[in-house]
Amino acid sequence: MVGAQSTGSARVWRNARLATLAEGTSGLGVVEAGAVAARDGRIVYAGPEADMPAGLLSGAEVVDCQGRWITPGLIDCHTHLVHAGNRANEFEMRLAGATYEEVARAGGGIVSSVKSLRAASEAELVAQTLPRLDVLIAEGVTTVEVKSGYGLDLDNEAKSLRAARQLAGVRPVTVRTTFLGAHALPPEANGDKDAYTDLVAGPMLARVADEGLADAVDGFCEGIAFSPSQMARVFDAATARGLPVKLHADQLSNLGGAALAASYGALSADHLEYTNEAGAIAMAKAGTVAVILPGAFYFIRETKKPPLDLFRQHGVKMAVATDNNPGTSPLTSLLLTMNMAATLFAMTVEECISGTTREAARALGLLAETGTLEAGKWADLAIWDIESPAELVYRMGFNPLHARIWRGK
Amino acid sequence: MVGAQSTGSARVWRNARLATLAEGTSGLGVVEAGAVAARDGRIVYAGPEADMPAGLLSGAEVVDCQGRWITPGLIDCHTHLVHAGNRANEFEMRLAGATYEEVARAGGGIVSSVKSLRAASEAELVAQTLPRLDVLIAEGVTTVEVKSGYGLDLDNEAKSLRAARQLAGVRPVTVRTTFLGAHALPPEANGDKDAYTDLVAGPMLARVADEGLADAVDGFCEGIAFSPSQMARVFDAATARGLPVKLHADQLSNLGGAALAASYGALSADHLEYTNEAGAIAMAKAGTVAVILPGAFYFIRETKKPPLDLFRQHGVKMAVATDNNPGTSPLTSLLLTMNMAATLFAMTVEECISGTTREAARALGLLAETGTLEAGKWADLAIWDIESPAELVYRMGFNPLHARIWRGK
Ligand SMILES: [Zn+2]
Ligand SMILES: [Zn+2]
Repeated sequence: MVGAQSTGSARVWRNARLATLAEGTSGLGVVEAGAVAARDGRIVYAGPEADMPAGLLSGAEVVDCQGRWITPGLIDCHTHLVHAGNRANEFEMRLAGATYEEVARAGGGIVSSVKSLRAASEAELVAQTLPRLDVLIAEGVTTVEVKSGYGLDLDNEAKSLRAARQLAGVRPVTVRTTFLGAHALPPEANGDKDAYTDLVAGPMLARVADEGLADAVDGFCEGIAFSPSQMARVFDAATARGLPVKLHADQLSNLGGAALAASYGALSADHLEYTNEAGAIAMAKAGTVAVILPGAFYFIRETKKPPLDLFRQHGVKMAVATDNNPGTSPLTSLLLTMNMAATLFAMTVEECISGTTREAARALGLLAETGTLEAGKWADLAIWDIESPAELVYRMGFNPLHARIWRGK
Repeated sequence: MVGAQSTGSARVWRNARLATLAEGTSGLGVVEAGAVAARDGRIVYAGPEADMPAGLLSGAEVVDCQGRWITPGLIDCHTHLVHAGNRANEFEMRLAGATYEEVARAGGGIVSSVKSLRAASEAELVAQTLPRLDVLIAEGVTTVEVKSGYGLDLDNEAKSLRAARQLAGVRPVTVRTTFLGAHALPPEANGDKDAYTDLVAGPMLARVADEGLADAVDGFCEGIAFSPSQMARVFDAATARGLPVKLHADQLSNLGGAALAASYGALSADHLEYTNEAGAIAMAKAGTVAVILPGAFYFIRETKKPPLDLFRQHGVKMAVATDNNPGTSPLTSLLLTMNMAATLFAMTVEECISGTTREAARALGLLAETGTLEAGKWADLAIWDIESPAELVYRMGFNPLHARIWRGK
């Protein structure tokens, strides 16, 4: 939509309170009596209405926001949104007292998601994902990251990523895809993690890169998944192909995943419940964003919290995301996720809101394009029926979105 | 809508899977290949489609549910839905490290809700409440209980209850009102709880009863609120006027509130984190329902869980409700509340669903009218786009409601 020559007239949202989240401003970057102007899908002005160049109003479509708040469109920077079926049955079994073993014997666990995904066509995957995406969009999400990781073979990982890419064709939303072949071991690998790692780092990554299916490469570094040295092989291959990396790190134990990710200059390390100070220092130095995922913490009844004080102390940037997935976080509300981050981890209102806007953009390598209200970025806005930004974090199950603008529309 | 002579033709929902929740059936009372028929707002048949009297179909409007699940309409049996303003600011202050004292000095706490409510007109109260009610309704709620308790004087308690009653005139929903004058001490009482108790048990309760404003009487029995003997005076007055009672009991400490409520044959005792075995036994004997409120437990970061095993062991019926209120549970999703009951308290899927239907109706004294799919009751239905009832509990932030029927419409 962005032409070489900007000929379209502007759209202006005036009489608004802005939380610009612009870097260098303090707090949320609040502008009272603010206005945002957009042209050709990009912000051309965001700031005090009184300072807006008068020329922007000529021929512009002007929206009176009647004092409402405008934030950057929300960004869900860690999801497994493309999946098939659900795992409500194993949830029910566990509540009725079944052990993890009994659930596994009944066909539960990630294997069941792999089976369902492999059985679904690409079109079916898109159809099953859209209701979840629509819930995110209804809450003001304008950018969403989507991982593969339930296909676990060449064709099914590619199918997942193609389905994720398709979402952007049928909904007004920016989609970033992440190749997560190193999510779990497929049944046919017969327990041989090294052989499967070779497959991921070799032919699978080659195909994903050649077909341009992924914007980043991720993995699950954990005792029950892949070791740091196996992840390093995947990251070496990704780096060789110019793809940035991220990592599910230190969720259930400390294998040094955060530090490993940082050593590759990862965009983000995610979960981080068991990350230690060395990991936090490494992340700060590398500019690796800590993606906090309270939904999974809550759903699996984890008790160890991520070391937020270490992240604050060392200046690690923090994002917040749903981790939407059928096994450990069937969560489709980014607003509720903010409440969980505040209630369960005592993240502040400012951390929750910057974590779903500016820092989430940073975690996707998209900060130049979105995540704040600043001239030059995509005009991705969320307009809210609230009296103060804290209301976005405070409520549970209530959606105060008034309007959502994606790339100016 | 229910005429002495039933002349209207029936409405039939066929090709459905039913969770009837009928008493005497096991589990959720599941009927595969089921149908529900309603006439004049009441269920005239609910059961296997094959067994439905053929006469019901003549002239009936038939809805093909295409295999969807039908449950009773959901019931939120404990809310403070009518309130003014919100307390996002004190939420933000506390996250930023403020103590309760600092919040109180800044005008926070329940006093701020009392101030806001007193300043609002009855029409403003209705207008502020409707968005919250609409969220509940959108999730299939057909009956909601609403307490007073932020007015704390004669006129403002009456205003709150009138506003609650008005809701039923502007939305298709059954509203039950509860007089909660004994919620907190108003500022003008200058710390004299006994004098204020006399006011509640005397002129306030008299007016509420005379004007027919409340269906039940509630109180908050706690060190920071009213003592058991003060509550007993309120309950004596309620009983004398023929009003059933309920109680906020044992939420923060064990003052024997559950047993006190049971000794008055209370419809319910609510919260119950600190209830002991004697309390559970008394409740079982009296038929007092335990209303479990995981939203407040979560929001105030309580760690002591209600003694569900004691309730199960002694046969205490359990309901689940949002406790929607601005200070300790700004929660407007009964589906999310079910997930919290399961995740935080390990309530089973069956307990969560019966707790928001049959047992919630029992906690309101409405089991003869609603809460199950049985002939003779109001035709209050929720029709869901789900494969299994467990999905209602498993997801977080997703609303699979397909349609909602209130009294047949
Ligand atoms: Zn994940
Ligand atoms: Zn309450």
